[in-house]
Amino acid sequence: MKVGILGGGQLARMLALAGHPLGIECVVLDPAPDACAHVAASHIVGAYEDRPSLEQLVRVADVVTYEFENVPAPSVRLLEEHLPVYPPSEALALSRDRLTEKELFRDLGIPVVPFVAVDSLEALREAVDALGLPALVKTRCLGYDGKGQVLLRSREEIPDAWEALGGAPAILEGFAEFSREISIVALRSRAGEIAFYPVSENTHQGGILHYSCSTDSDPRQREAEDMAGSLLERLGYVGILALELFDTPRGLVANEMAPRVHNTGHWTIEGAGVSQFENHLRAVAGLPLGDTSRKGHSGMVNFIGVAPAQEAVLKIPHSHYHSYGKAPRPGRKIGHGTICAPSRESLLRGLEYLRELAPLVR
Amino acid sequence: MKVGILGGGQLARMLALAGHPLGIECVVLDPAPDACAHVAASHIVGAYEDRPSLEQLVRVADVVTYEFENVPAPSVRLLEEHLPVYPPSEALALSRDRLTEKELFRDLGIPVVPFVAVDSLEALREAVDALGLPALVKTRCLGYDGKGQVLLRSREEIPDAWEALGGAPAILEGFAEFSREISIVALRSRAGEIAFYPVSENTHQGGILHYSCSTDSDPRQREAEDMAGSLLERLGYVGILALELFDTPRGLVANEMAPRVHNTGHWTIEGAGVSQFENHLRAVAGLPLGDTSRKGHSGMVNFIGVAPAQEAVLKIPHSHYHSYGKAPRPGRKIGHGTICAPSRESLLRGLEYLRELAPLVR
Repeated sequence: MKVGILGGGQLARMLALAGHPLGIECVVLDPAPDACAHVAASHIVGAYEDRPSLEQLVRVADVVTYEFENVPAPSVRLLEEHLPVYPPSEALALSRDRLTEKELFRDLGIPVVPFVAVDSLEALREAVDALGLPALVKTRCLGYDGKGQVLLRSREEIPDAWEALGGAPAILEGFAEFSREISIVALRSRAGEIAFYPVSENTHQGGILHYSCSTDSDPRQREAEDMAGSLLERLGYVGILALELFDTPRGLVANEMAPRVHNTGHWTIEGAGVSQFENHLRAVAGLPLGDTSRKGHSGMVNFIGVAPAQEAVLKIPHSHYHSYGKAPRPGRKIGHGTICAPSRESLLRGLEYLRELAPLVR
Repeated sequence: MKVGILGGGQLARMLALAGHPLGIECVVLDPAPDACAHVAASHIVGAYEDRPSLEQLVRVADVVTYEFENVPAPSVRLLEEHLPVYPPSEALALSRDRLTEKELFRDLGIPVVPFVAVDSLEALREAVDALGLPALVKTRCLGYDGKGQVLLRSREEIPDAWEALGGAPAILEGFAEFSREISIVALRSRAGEIAFYPVSENTHQGGILHYSCSTDSDPRQREAEDMAGSLLERLGYVGILALELFDTPRGLVANEMAPRVHNTGHWTIEGAGVSQFENHLRAVAGLPLGDTSRKGHSGMVNFIGVAPAQEAVLKIPHSHYHSYGKAPRPGRKIGHGTICAPSRESLLRGLEYLRELAPLVR
């Protein structure tokens, strides 16, 4: 079985590594000749819009998936004419646009912050009148890791914010009062089997995920599962879906979803029965899903901008090192470390060491 | 860091897969163009004696290891002139020859079956007189998976046995009365740190390992650790060392050792904190060793000659599938399945299903 992946970064790399034991070989399409998945996957070097490259992928792959949301829609359509593409393109289309994503959440009864679509400076002013301040203005598409968004604290900031986003179609979001950010990584098989990983609690710095933790049973587990489950069913989903949520005094509020394996699920490599990467492949390949239960207490720290030495990390009890084989660059995710410990206390102690070794370099 | 590996079979493949997260890339030297490690490693296609190939390996690797015992000694010497080679060549030389291996055990006070070196038909007759029957006559070198050995039950069988072994230098071994076969996978780092995996209990069929189990604390754990520990120290060992043992009424008796990652340690991929493959790389790369403790109850069944369908295996609760990417052929190890279960009962139930799916095809 050959699984094609659009994108050859670290998510594709970890998928490819998880594939070989299953007898699944991955083929990535990525324009970068040094795409870091190449060490464990075949690599078609080509643009995501390049027809000959897409046709080559069709010839070699049995099924196609992707590691990022911003896959060009015409490319997905071309692939879909020849092969199954999972997760389904509707999930891709809806999640790529913050407006349609929030409308989907709302339609399914999943709580969201108040939001208004804005497509002009004037509309942004009116939206601020309607929602009040502070509020976040975000481009509808192509935002990630804190990019493509501006926090508005006063009306005077409106013109600069609009200019900073380049006048692209945008959305104004009211501000949620939340105590913490959590996420749930959910999955659905081709046969309709559904499973959920334990919720993880996430800490961002300047919009980039710094670290995630999954320890004792989370009081919001069931609530998060209900939300993610309704999305999986509504979309006829196949593969891993991550849902980021705010924990507020009035319950969970959905922030955004990602139709792919997710940074807040990296701890599952050591911390769960079967990792999100293997389970994503099992799902898209039509195999039975694997055990998502947590083994011990796990946490993950991203290596951003610079990676600590292996030796220093591996001296921490119960630690694991994940290099992505990427050159260091400020703000770039180039690896992560995981602690998978027998107790919450030893996890928290290990994470403290690990965070000291791996400060976020923007 | 680049680790060179002599041999590009499934052991090298699993080493290479374990290397990427550590930032370690493997380069295998193997004469077979389709050596199955190539999916995750660079591959120098060349004979193990081929000087230009060995020189190429020297140029790209920082350290060299191997996946099988029968590496030609001159090749190891050539490599050692330029690079560290781990495990040390003395371990390779001693374990390659059943006679020197048994002498090493005896010198360290590790119990062995009675044995006599034989290099002629006459010497074999005398050895049978000395040890009695039944006894096993084995070639000193190049035997594996039940090959290169003959069971002698009567004196009449002596000439045929000698002929079957081609008149090669041999060893006659007395017969041990044992209740079970166990093995211990041990390791030592470049810094001299020593660790042991929990003992596993192994079941062979016709000399080939069929399945292994590691469940509750084994009453022979400490005894096995003492034996393996004395070998590690004596050899100034670096890397994984497997020691196969017979459990007899008078204690453990050493059968043989393997200076490499070992089939009876495959369950550690899911069943231990850090797998034998990752720990071997950590050791040879000079990194701290990882947690060898058992998580849950684990067992492994080899896929020999034919591999069961992924779907059938993955339906078994707590199961994992390991394809080696090799073409099926009678008697060939082409994959394995692992059960890593929360209880001994569910492990044994899972193993029973798995063994039914994966009968040994010779």
